[in-house]
Amino acid sequence: MKALVYHGEGQKAWEDVPDPLLRDDTDAIVGIDAVTICGTDLHILKGDVPEVTSGRILGHEAIGTVESIGSAVRSVQPGDRVLISCISGCGICSFCRQGHYGQCLGGGGWVLGHLIDGVQAEFARIPYADTSLYRLPDALPAESAVLLADILPTSFEVGVLAAHVQPGDTVVIVGAGPIGLAAVMTARLFSPAHIMVIDPVSTRLDAAKALGADTVVQNATGAEDAEVLVADITDGHGADVVIEAVGLPETFELCTRLVRPGGHVANVGVHGKPATLHLESLWIKNVTITTGLVDTSSTPRLLTLVRNGQLNPSSLVTHTFQLSQMMDAYDVFARAGETSAIKVVCTK
Amino acid sequence: MKALVYHGEGQKAWEDVPDPLLRDDTDAIVGIDAVTICGTDLHILKGDVPEVTSGRILGHEAIGTVESIGSAVRSVQPGDRVLISCISGCGICSFCRQGHYGQCLGGGGWVLGHLIDGVQAEFARIPYADTSLYRLPDALPAESAVLLADILPTSFEVGVLAAHVQPGDTVVIVGAGPIGLAAVMTARLFSPAHIMVIDPVSTRLDAAKALGADTVVQNATGAEDAEVLVADITDGHGADVVIEAVGLPETFELCTRLVRPGGHVANVGVHGKPATLHLESLWIKNVTITTGLVDTSSTPRLLTLVRNGQLNPSSLVTHTFQLSQMMDAYDVFARAGETSAIKVVCTK
Amino acid sequence: MKALVYHGEGQKAWEDVPDPLLRDDTDAIVGIDAVTICGTDLHILKGDVPEVTSGRILGHEAIGTVESIGSAVRSVQPGDRVLISCISGCGICSFCRQGHYGQCLGGGGWVLGHLIDGVQAEFARIPYADTSLYRLPDALPAESAVLLADILPTSFEVGVLAAHVQPGDTVVIVGAGPIGLAAVMTARLFSPAHIMVIDPVSTRLDAAKALGADTVVQNATGAEDAEVLVADITDGHGADVVIEAVGLPETFELCTRLVRPGGHVANVGVHGKPATLHLESLWIKNVTITTGLVDTSSTPRLLTLVRNGQLNPSSLVTHTFQLSQMMDAYDVFARAGETSAIKVVCTK
Amino acid sequence: MKALVYHGEGQKAWEDVPDPLLRDDTDAIVGIDAVTICGTDLHILKGDVPEVTSGRILGHEAIGTVESIGSAVRSVQPGDRVLISCISGCGICSFCRQGHYGQCLGGGGWVLGHLIDGVQAEFARIPYADTSLYRLPDALPAESAVLLADILPTSFEVGVLAAHVQPGDTVVIVGAGPIGLAAVMTARLFSPAHIMVIDPVSTRLDAAKALGADTVVQNATGAEDAEVLVADITDGHGADVVIEAVGLPETFELCTRLVRPGGHVANVGVHGKPATLHLESLWIKNVTITTGLVDTSSTPRLLTLVRNGQLNPSSLVTHTFQLSQMMDAYDVFARAGETSAIKVVCTK
Repeated sequence: MKALVYHGEGQKAWEDVPDPLLRDDTDAIVGIDAVTICGTDLHILKGDVPEVTSGRILGHEAIGTVESIGSAVRSVQPGDRVLISCISGCGICSFCRQGHYGQCLGGGGWVLGHLIDGVQAEFARIPYADTSLYRLPDALPAESAVLLADILPTSFEVGVLAAHVQPGDTVVIVGAGPIGLAAVMTARLFSPAHIMVIDPVSTRLDAAKALGADTVVQNATGAEDAEVLVADITDGHGADVVIEAVGLPETFELCTRLVRPGGHVANVGVHGKPATLHLESLWIKNVTITTGLVDTSSTPRLLTLVRNGQLNPSSLVTHTFQLSQMMDAYDVFARAGETSAIKVVCTK
Repeated sequence: MKALVYHGEGQKAWEDVPDPLLRDDTDAIVGIDAVTICGTDLHILKGDVPEVTSGRILGHEAIGTVESIGSAVRSVQPGDRVLISCISGCGICSFCRQGHYGQCLGGGGWVLGHLIDGVQAEFARIPYADTSLYRLPDALPAESAVLLADILPTSFEVGVLAAHVQPGDTVVIVGAGPIGLAAVMTARLFSPAHIMVIDPVSTRLDAAKALGADTVVQNATGAEDAEVLVADITDGHGADVVIEAVGLPETFELCTRLVRPGGHVANVGVHGKPATLHLESLWIKNVTITTGLVDTSSTPRLLTLVRNGQLNPSSLVTHTFQLSQMMDAYDVFARAGETSAIKVVCTK
Repeated sequence: MKALVYHGEGQKAWEDVPDPLLRDDTDAIVGIDAVTICGTDLHILKGDVPEVTSGRILGHEAIGTVESIGSAVRSVQPGDRVLISCISGCGICSFCRQGHYGQCLGGGGWVLGHLIDGVQAEFARIPYADTSLYRLPDALPAESAVLLADILPTSFEVGVLAAHVQPGDTVVIVGAGPIGLAAVMTARLFSPAHIMVIDPVSTRLDAAKALGADTVVQNATGAEDAEVLVADITDGHGADVVIEAVGLPETFELCTRLVRPGGHVANVGVHGKPATLHLESLWIKNVTITTGLVDTSSTPRLLTLVRNGQLNPSSLVTHTFQLSQMMDAYDVFARAGETSAIKVVCTK
Repeated sequence: MKALVYHGEGQKAWEDVPDPLLRDDTDAIVGIDAVTICGTDLHILKGDVPEVTSGRILGHEAIGTVESIGSAVRSVQPGDRVLISCISGCGICSFCRQGHYGQCLGGGGWVLGHLIDGVQAEFARIPYADTSLYRLPDALPAESAVLLADILPTSFEVGVLAAHVQPGDTVVIVGAGPIGLAAVMTARLFSPAHIMVIDPVSTRLDAAKALGADTVVQNATGAEDAEVLVADITDGHGADVVIEAVGLPETFELCTRLVRPGGHVANVGVHGKPATLHLESLWIKNVTITTGLVDTSSTPRLLTLVRNGQLNPSSLVTHTFQLSQMMDAYDVFARAGETSAIKVVCTK
C-alpha cells in the first residue's frame, strides 16, 4: 500500500510500504477513507518529537472501513464504517478504567503516528479496536466525521470541559488555529455570554467570527489590547475561562493575566518550552490551571451532537484532496499563512 | 489601649493607641482574648507588603469577646465569645454570595492587619461582623480556637479541598511550617493512604510525624530524594496530590515534578517571585494546579471537628505569652530556626 | 395603596390597604412596576396553603423601583429599577452562606405573599433588600425581567442544574405550564440533543415547540406513548434527564419510568400528595432524584443571559394588564384552559 | 467439583457438578480460596429472584487463584491470587467506559450466581476477567479480602460516595447488617462528626459501636426515637446524610424523615416493594435521593486502604467454615437472629 512515511527531520514521502497485519487479538485493520493532518505532524517533521523515528507512518486523525479484526474484538465487524480515535486505550489499566485513555499505562495513549505506524496510509493497524473505534452512521459526511478523531474532543475535553464553561460566562480563546476554532464551536454548547478570540492572523479571526465568536482581537500591536478589552467586557474582573490554544510561553502567560479571580485557565496548546507562572500575583487569585492530553471519552457525545446538526465540524475544512495527493495536502497545510488552510482532508 | 503597631520596614512597637470605635452599622468591637502571629506578619515587617502603611496595627488571627455591635449586626451580642475570621466578607457581592469571601469586592477579603487595623491589640474593630465572627463554645480552649482564624481553614480549603484529597491517595506536602502541618492534620480527615512531608528543618519534620505523616524527607541533600521516594511509593506514577506550603519558586517547581498524571498541585504558599512552569512536560499530563486565598467558608465545619475532638490544632502551639508580651512573642516566632517555634499564642 | 388581598378560601379583593413601611434596617420599600401571578397563588386561593392567613397581600414575582431603604441597605438606592427575587435571604445563616437562600433559617426563604405581605400591590416592603433585589438595566423589558423573579431561576436551578443537563443529552420535561416551558428554555442553554415535552394541553405543547422542544407528546391517551417514544429515541435506555413540572403523583411516577439507569429525575412540581416510589425496580438503577425550592442564586447569571438576548422569557407572556386590572388578570390566568394563558403580567 | 446448587424455592445442595470450562477468550477459571454468603443469596433461596433458575450455582463474593485464562486475558496469569469482583464488566459499552460496570450492557453487571454460575464452588468461570479480577497481595488475609468482592464497595459507592459524606457531617445509617456495618466503616474514611446507627438487633448495634458508631438506636419502640435523637444532635435540622441499608418501605420512609434540607438519602437496600415518597413535604427540601447497584469501580482504592490497615473488614466475619461445610455456613447465616452471624466465610 501507499503511506506517508517520515524519514527524519524535514523528510517525508508518500511511498510503497507493506500492508499492515493483525498483530494482537485486540487489533483491527482499517482501510482509510479520509484522513487529515495535525499541527503535531508538522512538529514531528521539524524533528521536535524525538520519539518519532525514521520510517514511521504519520497521522492520527482518520475515518475508515474495517477490513479485518482480531479474535478478541467484539464491537466492530469487517465492513463497518468507523471513526479512528487519535487515542488508543487498553481498557484495563487504572487510567483507562476511569476513562482517562490519554494516560493509558497499557500501551495505549497517543501512539498512532507516534510510537506505532499511523493513519496517513491506505490501511492502518489499530490496536485496542474495541475502545478506539466508533461506528459511524452512513449519513455522516467524512469531512465532519474525521474531525472527531482529535480536534473536537481535544478542544472540548481539555479546553471547554476542563475549564467548566457555564451559561453566561465570558470565555477567551487564545489562538484561532484548528483547536482554537473547535474550542469556539464546542464552548458554544454551554451558552457562554461572550466569546473573545485572540490571534495574529485575520483570516483565522474571520473564521472565528463565522463560528460565533463575539469579539476578535488581532494581537499584532501586542496583547495589551486584549487585557483592556477583557476588562471592559467584565467590569474589570477578568474572564471566567481562558483557553490556551497556541503552545507558546507568551500566550500562556497572557491567559494567566486575562483570567478573573476564581476563574479557569485551560491549556490545550502543545508546548516545547517552559512558561513563567506569575505566582507573585496568582497565589491569591483562586485560579485553576489545567493541562492535558485528550482522552476521547467524550467522543460518543460529540458524535451525537454532530449527527444531530448541533456541531458542524466540516466548516473547519478549507481544502480537500485525494489520498494520493497527501504530499500536496501537507504543502498547503504547512503554508497556512499563505493558503489560509485550517484543516485539509484527504479522501479515498 | 495597647497594640502592636507597624512603623515601617523592620520597625514595630507594643504601644498606646486610641481604642477602636464602631464606624459602620455592620461593625463589632471585640476585646481580644488570644492572638497569634502569622508568617505574613514577618513579611510585612520586612517591608514586603507595601500596602501595609506605617501606623497600622498588625494581626489577623485572634479570638475575643464582643464588646459592642453596630445597629445592623444580628448574629452576635456583646459578651459573646467569638472567633475572628482572618477574612472579612461584605456578604453581598458576587463573590461573597458564592462563599468566596477571600475575593470580596465590597471592602472585605483580607483587610485586618493589612488595609485596616488588625487584632494584635487589646481591642479591634471588626467590619462585617455577621459574616466574620463565629460564636465559640466556652469549653473550646483558646489555643485551639485561635488557629481556626487562618491556618486551619487555609490549609483545608486552599490545600486539601482544592486538591480533592480522597481516601487512599498519596499526598505530598512540601513545607512543614504552620500551614504545612495544618495540611497534614486536615488532609487526614479524608484518609489518604500515605502522607509525605518535605522540609529542611528536622524539628518541623518531627512535628509532622507526630501529626501523622507517614514519611518525612529532610531535603538537605536536594529534592531528588523526594522524587525517588515518591516514585517508590506510587509505582512510579507520582503523587495524587501535592500541596505547596512554602512559597518559593523551587518548592513550587518540585511540586509539579512530584505529581502524577491526572493529579493536583494545590499552591498554598505566599509567593513573592514567579516560578517556572514546565509546560514542555506538563502540557500532556492532565495536571490541575490551583491557587488561592482562604475564604474561611469551611470555618463552621472545622469548628465542629475541633469541638468534636477530631482535630486538635493546639498541638501546633509551641509557645504561649501574655498579650503584653507581644514583642517577646514576635522575637521567638521570628527566630523559629533556633526556638523551634511553630505557632506562638498571646492570651489576655 | 391598592393591593390584592386574600380573604380566606376562594376570596380575594383588589382593595385599599395601608402603605407598607420600613420595619428593619435591612428592608427596602419598592414601588411595583410589573407583577405576575404564579400557579401557587391559585393554590393559596383554594385554601391549599394554610400558612397563608386571611388579610395577606399575595404575590412573589415582581419588578419595581426602590422608594426608600433601611439604614443597613448598601446595594440599592431609591430610584433604582430592581428585580424582586421571590426568595428572601438573611445572608448570614448556614444555608444563605452557601447560596441556599430558599432554605434560609433567618426569616427568609419564600416569605413574600406567603408569610408576609407580597408584591401584588402598588408598593411592597422587601426584607433583606441587599440579597433580594437586583438592579435592572433600563433597556430590559418589564415582561422579560419579571419572569426572572421566580420561574426562570426555578426551572433552571431546581430542574436543569440539579439534573446536570449536558450537551447531547435526551431531556424529557413532564408538564408544559410556565415552569415546564421555562425548563425547555433553560435546558437549551446546555445543548441537549433532544427535548421531549409531555402535557395534555395542545396549546402548551405548541408553545413548547416554539421554544425548541424536539418532540411533544399529548398524553391524552395515557403516558404509555411517552415510554415508547423515549425508548425509541434512546435505543431503549431511557432519558438522561427527566424534569417533573406538574406536581402530581402520576406525573412523578411517569418520570421515574422514563429515566435511564444512571440518569436524573429533577422534581420541580409543587406536590400536595405523596407519590409511589417504585424502589423494587429503581433500587438497582443508579438513579438520582432531586427536589427543591429555588434559591435564586442563579439570578445574576440569568440576568446576563436575558440582557444578552440568549434567553427571551417574555415569549411566555400571553396576556398583559394594568396593575389596576389585577382581578381580571387572575380571572384569565385561572381559566388557562380556555384562555391559553401561560404568564399574565400586570404593569403600572 | 463440588458446588452449592440452587434447586428451586427453598432447595439447595452442596453437590457434584462438572468443572467449569473456559468459554470466551476473555474468561478465566479461578479456584476458589474463600467465599462468603450474601443476604441476596437468602432472597434467591426464598424464590424472590425469579431470574435465578434451578440448577444455578450461587455466590458472588469470593477470592481465589487463577487456574487458566482465555487467549484475550492480559492482566492476570495462572497462579495469581485474585479478588473476584461481584460485578462483571465488558469494558466496552457506554456504561463500562464510564466505570459504571454495574449497568454493563455487554453481558456484565451482576451475573455471577445470578444469570450464570457463581462462586460458591471449588472453581468458577469468571467472564471478562480483565475487568473483574484484581491481584491480591499474599499478605492480605482471606477474610478481609473476600469482603472486598461486594459489601465494602457497595456500602462505599452506593452509600458513602453517592451521599457525599464530608468531614463534620452527621450520618445516619438505617440497618446494621453487613452492608450497614460496612457503611459505618467506610463512612469514617471521610471523618463525619457523628454516625448514628438504627437497627432492631442489639448485637448488631454492639458491632456498630465497636466499628465507631457514635450513637446507636434500637428501634423496638418505633422510629420516633430516632427522629427525636437526630433533631437533638443537629439543632433540629436533620442529618446531612442518611443511608438506607435494609430494603423495606418503612426504613426508606424513615430515611426521608431524618434528612435535613439540602441533605442526601442514599438507598443501598435491595427492595421488593414500592415505598411512599412524601413529596408533599419533600418537594421543598432540596433533598437528593440516590439508588444504585455497585460498580466496584472503587475496588482498587479500597484494596489500598485494606492493605494499609485503614480498613479492617475481617472484623465483620463472625463465623468461619471449610468450603465443604457450605451447608452449615448457610444454616448459621440464615439464623443470624440466633447466631449473631454477620458475615460467614468458607475457606478452602
